[in-house]
Amino acid sequence: MTSVPKKALPIEGHDRRPTERTDWAQMMTDDEYYPFLVKKNIRPAIWRWADARPKLEELAKDKLRRADRRFLSLVNADTGEAGGVLPSLFLGLQIINPGEHIVPHRHNSYALYHIIQGEGYSIVGDHRFDWSRGDTFACSPWALHEHVNTGTEPAIQYVIQDMPARAMERNLMWEEPIGKMFHMVEGNLPHSD
Amino acid sequence: MTSVPKKALPIEGHDRRPTERTDWAQMMTDDEYYPFLVKKNIRPAIWRWADARPKLEELAKDKLRRADRRFLSLVNADTGEAGGVLPSLFLGLQIINPGEHIVPHRHNSYALYHIIQGEGYSIVGDHRFDWSRGDTFACSPWALHEHVNTGTEPAIQYVIQDMPARAMERNLMWEEPIGKMFHMVEGNLPHSD
Amino acid sequence: MTSVPKKALPIEGHDRRPTERTDWAQMMTDDEYYPFLVKKNIRPAIWRWADARPKLEELAKDKLRRADRRFLSLVNADTGEAGGVLPSLFLGLQIINPGEHIVPHRHNSYALYHIIQGEGYSIVGDHRFDWSRGDTFACSPWALHEHVNTGTEPAIQYVIQDMPARAMERNLMWEEPIGKMFHMVEGNLPHSD
Amino acid sequence: MTSVPKKALPIEGHDRRPTERTDWAQMMTDDEYYPFLVKKNIRPAIWRWADARPKLEELAKDKLRRADRRFLSLVNADTGEAGGVLPSLFLGLQIINPGEHIVPHRHNSYALYHIIQGEGYSIVGDHRFDWSRGDTFACSPWALHEHVNTGTEPAIQYVIQDMPARAMERNLMWEEPIGKMFHMVEGNLPHSD
Repeated sequence: MTSVPKKALPIEGHDRRPTERTDWAQMMTDDEYYPFLVKKNIRPAIWRWADARPKLEELAKDKLRRADRRFLSLVNADTGEAGGVLPSLFLGLQIINPGEHIVPHRHNSYALYHIIQGEGYSIVGDHRFDWSRGDTFACSPWALHEHVNTGTEPAIQYVIQDMPARAMERNLMWEEPIGKMFHMVEGNLPHSD
Repeated sequence: MTSVPKKALPIEGHDRRPTERTDWAQMMTDDEYYPFLVKKNIRPAIWRWADARPKLEELAKDKLRRADRRFLSLVNADTGEAGGVLPSLFLGLQIINPGEHIVPHRHNSYALYHIIQGEGYSIVGDHRFDWSRGDTFACSPWALHEHVNTGTEPAIQYVIQDMPARAMERNLMWEEPIGKMFHMVEGNLPHSD
Repeated sequence: MTSVPKKALPIEGHDRRPTERTDWAQMMTDDEYYPFLVKKNIRPAIWRWADARPKLEELAKDKLRRADRRFLSLVNADTGEAGGVLPSLFLGLQIINPGEHIVPHRHNSYALYHIIQGEGYSIVGDHRFDWSRGDTFACSPWALHEHVNTGTEPAIQYVIQDMPARAMERNLMWEEPIGKMFHMVEGNLPHSD
Repeated sequence: MTSVPKKALPIEGHDRRPTERTDWAQMMTDDEYYPFLVKKNIRPAIWRWADARPKLEELAKDKLRRADRRFLSLVNADTGEAGGVLPSLFLGLQIINPGEHIVPHRHNSYALYHIIQGEGYSIVGDHRFDWSRGDTFACSPWALHEHVNTGTEPAIQYVIQDMPARAMERNLMWEEPIGKMFHMVEGNLPHSD
């Protein structure tokens, strides 16, 4: 019996030479595996506002660069490849100058924003949230978002994302600029031209 | 100071009416929160081959239907909303009739295939893997994949995916048919026309 | 051949009656499974400081209650069973009165603290971190932690944890008071006597 | 105002010298962070039964060694630090000789067992599951489990666990032997004496 698929088949590739073995497919015994699996512990860590503030002010003097935004990411070196404030978590301090507009993009990592300083608004999916110090708002996965500083001092957002978990699992997806969607793995950097 | 963004701004939406409050944003005290957070335990569970096999054979008699494939998903009812064999894991028994071709698609959940019965080949990204009983192959997140049964008996694949975790976190992305990419949330079902 | 195990066997239970079937072990076809798996989208949400502040002040008037601590958890109702500010994330505003001491405990969820107001210190594993407004510190999974307000005004901590992910996956472990370790599922609530 | 805690305080440690800075707490700008975060893609991979089988037979000749069990872990080298068949997933082929008993232990990673060959039974929490080829059973996080081969040929289990995710996030907890519970990080290996 041969079924007739509903759609025309993409037939390219079906005559390619079969792959017999993939060298990166390894097998390890239990005694080999456990020492490889288990990781060194993460040490508790502290980031001082007295250290972060001057770095943010320095960053604010730069033009909006390649990334189209300016943030300081707080990273615990013990997280190794994961590269986060904790192994599955990103923490960024984002600074936006008066009048600046961080242009829209989206990704399947979520983003949680807490306002440390300043005032402005963000467009998140169908909502416009006007914010000032102490407010918290959440951008759901895949919601378009953009930010505008409407005040007279730099705005500082405390931003939490699950980017490290998504990047480690290679399931991070991105759209930026609007209309250009891609899988965020090596070769595809965010905010690049 | 007003920065000049590199790209023209999408300005639609900036004059929309600000959202002051979102009713679904709740606040709970510690005493309210913990009983809400903590879940009932998952009971150990068993799925018998003697039960699964006739269901698979029944399924194999159907035409390839809406989903363009046929599988039995083994679900532990205790996983609740997560809906998996375990709260973050999908387990499916996929059956492919002789001559059938499961057309290509991709998603940012991974897929791990173990061959229980039959022979055929799969195209996974740049590779063509010819397989028979006992082989295991892994489809990485966002790799295109398709399967063909080249044998004379139905092929059965034991398939593991992280779909429940991705669906719960609302970061599941899908492309099917090729060229149609979407965020897999309510309103967007896979394999539908 | 019969191996001789290194340790004496716990033999209780080996003569129990075998379980043939577990009713909660279900099987669903692809057409049944997808609509069950896919979730409604999470709406963006905002929590206003103007709303949270008076609730925190009200909470601070209470004695330290059953939970031995006082926090407001910000929950997006769209997260459903997951019960978080996002489906895998807990956000709590913790308030500590002058002179108060939040006694030590630990869990395998991490905790990230940002100081919104006040001063004091925390003991996290081997470290004593003295903190004031703007500082951020991270408590690694399974590190013991306790907090003391040494200032004259209430201290407010902005606390991020991965509790919802751990609770959904039923892998949340807790020790409180010190010496009493348990699996956090229904029947075991944190901070209870 | 000074609150009176319900329980006596552990006061050791409160007079320790405060930690001002932790060197492993780093700050990176956006341009530095993204190239660090984004990982190389995971290549699809295949493990042949023709390769695994002789390795398993070789393994079965060994005495039960340090780990008290024998398995082959299938690892994709592209998963790097995560060390799994996929970045969050462990896949092991466990072989149990006739008459052998894998003694009980538990962990907060789940375990999913599919029987490839042989017959025997497993005690999982409150259940005794007698199994043979084609059966699948799930061991929930923190359920005690042990396995006995009651047949005349070696039993082979296809085992899926979320150990790599738990190890990366440093939230893996273990109890083995019964009564000895520990946090599975460097310095604490499973199945060691």
